Parts: sequence; structure tokens; C-alpha cells
Amino acid sequence: MSTRLDEFRTKRQRMNERILQRAPLGIKRFFNLDTSAYKDGALPGRTKELLGLVASAVLRCNDCIDYHLIQCVEAGFRDDELYEALNVALVVGGSIVVPHLRHAFETIELLRAEEKA
Amino acid sequence: MSTRLDEFRTKRQRMNERILQRAPLGIKRFFNLDTSAYKDGALPGRTKELLGLVASAVLRCNDCIDYHLIQCVEAGFRDDELYEALNVALVVGGSIVVPHLRHAFETIELLRAEEKA
Amino acid sequence: MSTRLDEFRTKRQRMNERILQRAPLGIKRFFNLDTSAYKDGALPGRTKELLGLVASAVLRCNDCIDYHLIQCVEAGFRDDELYEALNVALVVGGSIVVPHLRHAFETIELLRAEEKA
Amino acid sequence: MSTRLDEFRTKRQRMNERILQRAPLGIKRFFNLDTSAYKDGALPGRTKELLGLVASAVLRCNDCIDYHLIQCVEAGFRDDELYEALNVALVVGGSIVVPHLRHAFETIELLRAEEKA
Amino acid sequence: MSTRLDEFRTKRQRMNERILQRAPLGIKRFFNLDTSAYKDGALPGRTKELLGLVASAVLRCNDCIDYHLIQCVEAGFRDDELYEALNVALVVGGSIVVPHLRHAFETIELLRAEEKA
Amino acid sequence: MSTRLDEFRTKRQRMNERILQRAPLGIKRFFNLDTSAYKDGALPGRTKELLGLVASAVLRCNDCIDYHLIQCVEAGFRDDELYEALNVALVVGGSIVVPHLRHAFETIELLRAEEKA
Repeated sequence: MSTRLDEFRTKRQRMNERILQRAPLGIKRFFNLDTSAYKDGALPGRTKELLGLVASAVLRCNDCIDYHLIQCVEAGFRDDELYEALNVALVVGGSIVVPHLRHAFETIELLRAEEKA
Repeated sequence: MSTRLDEFRTKRQRMNERILQRAPLGIKRFFNLDTSAYKDGALPGRTKELLGLVASAVLRCNDCIDYHLIQCVEAGFRDDELYEALNVALVVGGSIVVPHLRHAFETIELLRAEEKA
Repeated sequence: MSTRLDEFRTKRQRMNERILQRAPLGIKRFFNLDTSAYKDGALPGRTKELLGLVASAVLRCNDCIDYHLIQCVEAGFRDDELYEALNVALVVGGSIVVPHLRHAFETIELLRAEEKA
Repeated sequence: MSTRLDEFRTKRQRMNERILQRAPLGIKRFFNLDTSAYKDGALPGRTKELLGLVASAVLRCNDCIDYHLIQCVEAGFRDDELYEALNVALVVGGSIVVPHLRHAFETIELLRAEEKA
Repeated sequence: MSTRLDEFRTKRQRMNERILQRAPLGIKRFFNLDTSAYKDGALPGRTKELLGLVASAVLRCNDCIDYHLIQCVEAGFRDDELYEALNVALVVGGSIVVPHLRHAFETIELLRAEEKA
Repeated sequence: MSTRLDEFRTKRQRMNERILQRAPLGIKRFFNLDTSAYKDGALPGRTKELLGLVASAVLRCNDCIDYHLIQCVEAGFRDDELYEALNVALVVGGSIVVPHLRHAFETIELLRAEEKA
């Protein structure tokens, strides 16, 4: 079942490479800015990944949720911490976020299964 | 100039009270849920206020930004920490967030002026 | 205090007239379509005004909320009915809708004051 | 072809159960609030399902549209009534809603086919 | 691999026909308005297709992006022109647009492959 | 009446300067990216300003609409061209865009009055 995440990672990387080969300079610079925004700074990088997760959830983008969940799990967040962050997203964004909450809970399960394997 | 924040606080409180007097039970319960979402739990309350700030910024709601900035400043976040959180919001949400970034920077100034006074 | 609604009505009418004088045919036709969508049909016009109110609330547009509240009050909806419709908007749209809920409650008060006057 | 709806129902129920097993109290309470918002009250529950449908359509969430269409068909709305509600969503939300209109029309067909079967 | 676009075209046409058979007059008129908005006028139709593409990208609708990319390629836009338009969408809409940028780049590749075939 | 635009320009410039003095490097780089996105390239800068206008209108940001209208008028677009671009935004974004259409028409009037003065 973990193929959903593998497919996401493979397709994401393939298309990002294609974009970076072909895109104008502005798009490449945006990609750099995006990466830099989550590095350690005045706030720890892991806190900023959590900010990215909640922003992705209220804006309702499953690919963005998956990406930030991968980063958050790698940064060592526990399930109960991720659930509370998602609860903030749910309260701010309302029931329209619920389908993305279901998606996020499934992704967390898949990521924990990967950790065990 | 701090009157902008005072007006916001006064109007917010007056209308919230009116809503709680008149609204059906569902709305009152939502208000309770909203308050509870930012209490200390698996994540510290102050981290969740920062999540609320970024969610408000990417969803582009000045009143919500002001409310969470008030809470974040009270929770002891420094300017450089708030700016980095807002940078995440800017990168996720794009230039359409810029007018709200200007609003947020002004609110931070007003809140620091209140602290000094 | 009812001047907020009067100003809204005056400015709305003035600018709509200006648009209809100058705009290309497509914009005029859109305005006609918009008006027609709320006429009695398979569903009563008043039910469709309530649909317009909730759509405006979850999309967080105060001018649109005011417009549909004016129509809903004219169509005879009671406060408790309007509050329940707004509760649906709050649950679907989340706490980011709360500032618009405050706005809507104030508008309802202003409209009831106009009815009495 | 009705498998699309069956898959939706199965996956929705499975993940909702998982969320309710694991999620913090806030998320569970939100789910209760969400259910309560559509019960008979000052407005009939069926009117509120129609409000939920239009809110889901303008916010462009196919899963939410499907859920509320299932409820609306169960509540006895006819096709012409559902189409007029969707027309309000189209006019309010614009052509960006059209792909969701196509989805909604297909879902209505699937639900009518289930009724006949 | 071009089947993704073929499936999109087939399903889009089938459901649009179904909508036009069954929908109330308002929806049909909306479809006409939508088509007319991109015809040559004060601005060339091709410029308006580019406007439609950017609007679709910042509102994050893959079907709408595909539709306008098909029109833009037919109108003779080169890849570097499309990429710059998408860069504007990325800067305005932020990293939440990135998954749709990946989708758009893939669609452009598919359309160029169709041209060669 | 042109004071609305003057106030917008003054406040925008003052807060942008404040942001550039205080903000972390990421925000400054974002501002540069934003400026660069509208320079002449594969597409003329003026076409990209029109793209920025329509993106701003469908995302419903009055400050962003005003900024891009100022640029579009400076780039020599006529009223009928601007109206057609706004028509695309209206059709894509729906009636929720109408209050912003009213705002945009007023801004165009103010800008033409400034040109005459």
C-alpha cells in the first residue's frame, strides 16, 4: 500500500527535474526560496515544517500535505503532535478540510509503516 | 496610532458577546472548540498560536492575523521569529499575501509600542 | 449607525450603473445571469437567497454577505433561521469565517433596526 | 459504474473511524459539531443539506459535493432542484466551478441509478 | 502516455453535453458566456486564453489548466511564453501552486508530443 | 477623490520599506522575484501585468488589483482592454468577484482623472 507515497515521490522528483531543466530563471529561484524557507534560522526548521503542513492543510493541497508530513516525520514529530497541528488546520479551515484530514491520517500511517519496514 | 488595535479588540469583543447571546448552540460550541485548539497539549500552546498565525496569513484574513499576532507576542515570540513564520506564509501563499504581510508588520510595530508604553 | 448599510447600497448602485454604462456585453450578461439565478423556479427564490448567503460567507466576502442578508430579510427569514444558515457556513468554512460572522450579525441588527424605524 | 460512489463511501467511513480512534478530543468534537449542523432546527435539515452542497461546490471539494448530494437525494430533492442549487454555486463561484459541476451531474446520475437498482 | 489528455477531452465533452441536455437555462447561458469571454475583441482571443490559464493556475484547478493549455498551444504560444505566464501564476499564488506547475509542464509535453505525432 | 490611490501608494511604499529594513533575507528575495516576474522576457512585461491583474481579481485582493491597474495604465492599456481582461476574471471567478470589479472600475476612473490632471 506504500506505493501511493512512492509514486508521489517519484513523480514529484521527475517533474521537478524537468521544470528545473526548462523553466525560466524566476521559477528556479522560486524553488530555491521555497527550500530555504524551511531551514533552521530564528525558528527551528522542524517548527517551520509544521507551519508548512498547516498552511498546506488549510489551503487543501494533498501533495503539499504529503510533502510536509514526510518532512515532519523525518524531523521526529510524534503522531499526537501531528494530530494537534492538523486539529488547528481543521478548526481554522472548517469541514471542507476533512477530506484532506482523512488523506493526512492515511499518509501518517503509511509513513509509520515505512519506518517499521 | 495604536487605536487600530484598540478598535479591533473592542469591536471583536462586543460582537463576540452579541453572537454568544443570540447564536444557536452550534456556534457557541464552535467558539469553545476554537479556543481549546490553542491550549497546551501534545504541542505547546504557543507553537499552535504560530500555526494559527500562518494559517490566517495564507488564508488572507487581517483580523485573524491580528488576533494571532496579539497571542504570539503575549506568548513571548521575538520579531525575528514572527518574521520567519510570516516568510513561510509568503512562500506558501505567494505575492497575494504581501498586503497582509504589510498589515502584519504594522501590527507587530503597534504591539511592540504597546509593550513599551 | 445604519449609515454603513446606506453607504453600501449607494456605492453599490452607483458603481453597478457605471459598470453597466461602460462594460463590454459579457459583463452585462453576467449581471443578468446573476439576477436570474435567484428568481423563483424549481426552488423558491428565497431558498436560493439563503444559498447565496452561505456561499458568500464561506467565500468570505462582506459585501456579498450584506447583499444576500438584505434579500433574505426582505424574503421574510427570521433571525434564528439566518443564524442556522450562518452556522452551516461556519462549520464548513471554519474559524476564518468568524470575522465575517461578526459582520453578518451586525448587519442583521442594522436591518432589524431599519425595519422598526 | 456505481463503484465510484461505493469506493467513496467505504474509504470515507474507514478513514473517519480511524480518525475517531486516534484523534485528539478537539477533532472528535468537530465531527460532532459537523453532524449537528445539518439536523432539523429553525431550518429543516434538508434545507441545510442544500446549503452544505452549495458551500462545497463554491469551495470546490468533490468529496464534500458527493457527501451532500447523497444526503440531498436521500432527503428527497428532485434533479431540477439540485440543478438550480448548483446553478447558484456556478454563478457565485464562476467557471472554475465547472469541473465540479460535471462531477456533480455524474454523481446525481449514479445516485438515481442506485435508486432504480 | 497521451491518454491522460484524451481521457480528459472525452470525459469533459461527454459531461458538458449531459449538462446542456438537462441543466436549467441559467447554466446553459453561463456556458455561452464562458465561451464568448475568450473570443477576439478589444484584446486578441489568444491573450485572453493566457489570462484564463493564469487564473486557472492561481485558483489551482488542473482541468481548467489543461483546457486553457490546449487552447494556448492551438493559438501558437511557444513553451517559453507559457512558462513565463506560469511563472507569474507561481509568484502570485506561491508554492501551493507548485503541484499544478508540475501538472502544467507535463501537459505541455503531452501537447507537444501530439503536435509531432 | 484621488486620495484613495495616493493613500494606497504612500502606505504601500512606507510598509514595503519597513519590511525590507527588517525582514529576513527570504522575504527580500521574494520581493525581488516578484518584481522580476513582470519584466520584458519571452512575453512583454505589459502582457504579464495584465496576467497579474486577472490573477489578483480572481484571488480577490483590492490592493493587488490597484497595483496592477496602475502598472497596466502606465503600460498604455486602454479602458476597453482592461474591461475585457476583467471580464475574463469575472467569468472565471464568478459573482464573488463583482465587488472587486466595482473597485477596479473606480480605480480606472481615478487613474484616468490623474492622467488628465
